[in-house]
Amino acid sequence: MQSTFASRARKVQRSELAALFALAEEPAVISFAGGFPDPEWFLPEIIDISEEIMRTNRGVALQYGPTPGFTALREFMAARLTRQGMKCSAADVLITSGSLQGLDLVCKVFLEPGDVVLTEAPTYIGALQTFAGYEVDIVSVPVDAEGMRIDELESLLADVRAGKRAGGRMPKFIYTIPSFQNPSGCTLSLERRRALLSVASRFGVPVVEDHAYAELRYDGEDIPSLKALDEDDIVVHLGTFSKIFSPGLRLGWMVGPRLVMEKAILFKQGTDQCSNSLGQMMALEYGKRGLIEKQIEVTIASLRRKKDETLKALRTCFGDSITYTIPQGGFYTWVTFPEGVDTVALLPRAVKEYRVAYVAGPSFYADRSGGNQARLCFSQPRVDQIEEGIRRLHECLSARLAQ
Amino acid sequence: MQSTFASRARKVQRSELAALFALAEEPAVISFAGGFPDPEWFLPEIIDISEEIMRTNRGVALQYGPTPGFTALREFMAARLTRQGMKCSAADVLITSGSLQGLDLVCKVFLEPGDVVLTEAPTYIGALQTFAGYEVDIVSVPVDAEGMRIDELESLLADVRAGKRAGGRMPKFIYTIPSFQNPSGCTLSLERRRALLSVASRFGVPVVEDHAYAELRYDGEDIPSLKALDEDDIVVHLGTFSKIFSPGLRLGWMVGPRLVMEKAILFKQGTDQCSNSLGQMMALEYGKRGLIEKQIEVTIASLRRKKDETLKALRTCFGDSITYTIPQGGFYTWVTFPEGVDTVALLPRAVKEYRVAYVAGPSFYADRSGGNQARLCFSQPRVDQIEEGIRRLHECLSARLAQ
Repeated sequence: MQSTFASRARKVQRSELAALFALAEEPAVISFAGGFPDPEWFLPEIIDISEEIMRTNRGVALQYGPTPGFTALREFMAARLTRQGMKCSAADVLITSGSLQGLDLVCKVFLEPGDVVLTEAPTYIGALQTFAGYEVDIVSVPVDAEGMRIDELESLLADVRAGKRAGGRMPKFIYTIPSFQNPSGCTLSLERRRALLSVASRFGVPVVEDHAYAELRYDGEDIPSLKALDEDDIVVHLGTFSKIFSPGLRLGWMVGPRLVMEKAILFKQGTDQCSNSLGQMMALEYGKRGLIEKQIEVTIASLRRKKDETLKALRTCFGDSITYTIPQGGFYTWVTFPEGVDTVALLPRAVKEYRVAYVAGPSFYADRSGGNQARLCFSQPRVDQIEEGIRRLHECLSARLAQ
Repeated sequence: MQSTFASRARKVQRSELAALFALAEEPAVISFAGGFPDPEWFLPEIIDISEEIMRTNRGVALQYGPTPGFTALREFMAARLTRQGMKCSAADVLITSGSLQGLDLVCKVFLEPGDVVLTEAPTYIGALQTFAGYEVDIVSVPVDAEGMRIDELESLLADVRAGKRAGGRMPKFIYTIPSFQNPSGCTLSLERRRALLSVASRFGVPVVEDHAYAELRYDGEDIPSLKALDEDDIVVHLGTFSKIFSPGLRLGWMVGPRLVMEKAILFKQGTDQCSNSLGQMMALEYGKRGLIEKQIEVTIASLRRKKDETLKALRTCFGDSITYTIPQGGFYTWVTFPEGVDTVALLPRAVKEYRVAYVAGPSFYADRSGGNQARLCFSQPRVDQIEEGIRRLHECLSARLAQ
């Protein structure tokens, strides 16, 4: 039967995501691996909300809904996004089954085998896996403390246009996580946001903005989203309820140019028909009662402590022997170990012997570089586990370096 | 921007599904259109179940789950499917976000642009739309009172092998809805099931079985699923909680050859990561308490009355001027009006002037034939609306015929 598989199926390989999810379930392991919210952040008010919905409105909550999402939720989100500086009405908002579905729909709209997608390096594992299903080539631009290097972006696109890179194939879109990037933790500065849009516009390349963590800022000043700065209507904005409410309900949203949205809705019809109705009603009610904002407050306070604890422990244990990023929001710090450390080879031992988990650097690069790097996600461990977790990591690494 | 769209996006067109969902929302219309379960079938026990989950286990219900689904639900489903004659363990069951996602994953595993898929004619609109996203050609085999015409299937495949049809391209798979087919209401006989498997096996073509309605039998004897009869491991079985519990939670399952399942799970990771956790926990608890079986009983009793009422009204109003199928289960009867009736042209008037809705025949054919046919879905109207609805349909049609 395998001989009749599509070539995308022959190419797609088991990824690290499944392993992450498995690791995170081991209770003895202190996990800096999966990007899971801390269940402590889920507010108990959701109990009453779900009960009210089931008691008074279960005929709707358990029934099919419209493909683009319930109108009331789309209106609520449009108002919320408008307050964040985006110009949109309910008709512009598509409710998706998580922001990853949004990305998959964007891929369905734009990508053919052999196309090119431009990403940051490093970038989100899930996005790399989604792209792999479309048999495209990835070109990438490095990230520094201020996010994607726009000078490098510009010279790369100029090289492509001149036929000197990527076989002259202009990327179908630029995929970016501008705020508290997964995995680097870095944030694209306002100046670079404007520069990114200007370069993208000049080269005629749409921008796909993954806004997953943007509302979870614990330090520094807010920066408008790319969509809020998007005067040429070239940005597709992907958001998620996973980090401001619940990942388990699989809900996100997508706002972008009308033509893209029209096609995305058609593809959603043929993919899962509609996002789950009960979850949408819960999200709407949670939002209307101000609980999304309250949960964001709780989350930020918790993340700030966890981030401080993580960075302090890294400093204490590792001193100057490593470098790591200092995030102003979100879940991640990105660690660079000395040359020669192999975070992929080290991981099984870290988990089994030292009972600490992280995600190895190469998972975040299309070219599997970053062998001495790792992502530490501090959202899930308890504050009182973090120091111990980093100590285990240091022990594991010391043992390795001493061999 | 449109100039850089993938060719699948340029080809995909607005479908009837969205219109169906919109029609079904108009309260003055008696709708035989959308295949929605009657909300009366949702048992109130779900209120307590959802409250218990949120109260005692919301940290899991609102969190990401494993990509293939929660182990406990997969075990429950494996046991249930085993009782239905299928050989499977929890590891063989993938929980999907509705059975349409299962079909989309099968497409990702098998289909490349220019491939051929074999369907029944007529067949499920949603499947045709999913296939359209993969830019494949559809060949089809007609359905009669005993389901797919296996003699026609065999001669079609022989013609393909001989290079006389479909440019010699053997179908990548056969998509079939063997029980209470959508839209014809017909059921593939046991003899034909065996013949289908034998032909498929002989030509080396996998079979994708859409089992959506199979448990909703109100007349006649149960017939084993194709998967239960599948000795050569060539059947991918797609099931859904939409007709035995709730469509609004978007949950289904998929069981098939190991190699297909492995790839499907990888594609699911890149599509929506996992199906919604709360819904999975609700489905498991609903099932464990015997409520799926209880809901099926309630549903069957209700459907039997609605089917009887529908067929009686068709007989009374239309006499011998039309033919229609007599379903032994499921939601649908398939009506053939006299030559010259154009159900597509008639539909806007039926809805606006006569306030009755159906789905026109051509929606169910890849080649848009069936212009004098229509699907009547009797699941949603109340029993006391059915006669009036059919009367409106007859009036609308008489006016048309009298012109």
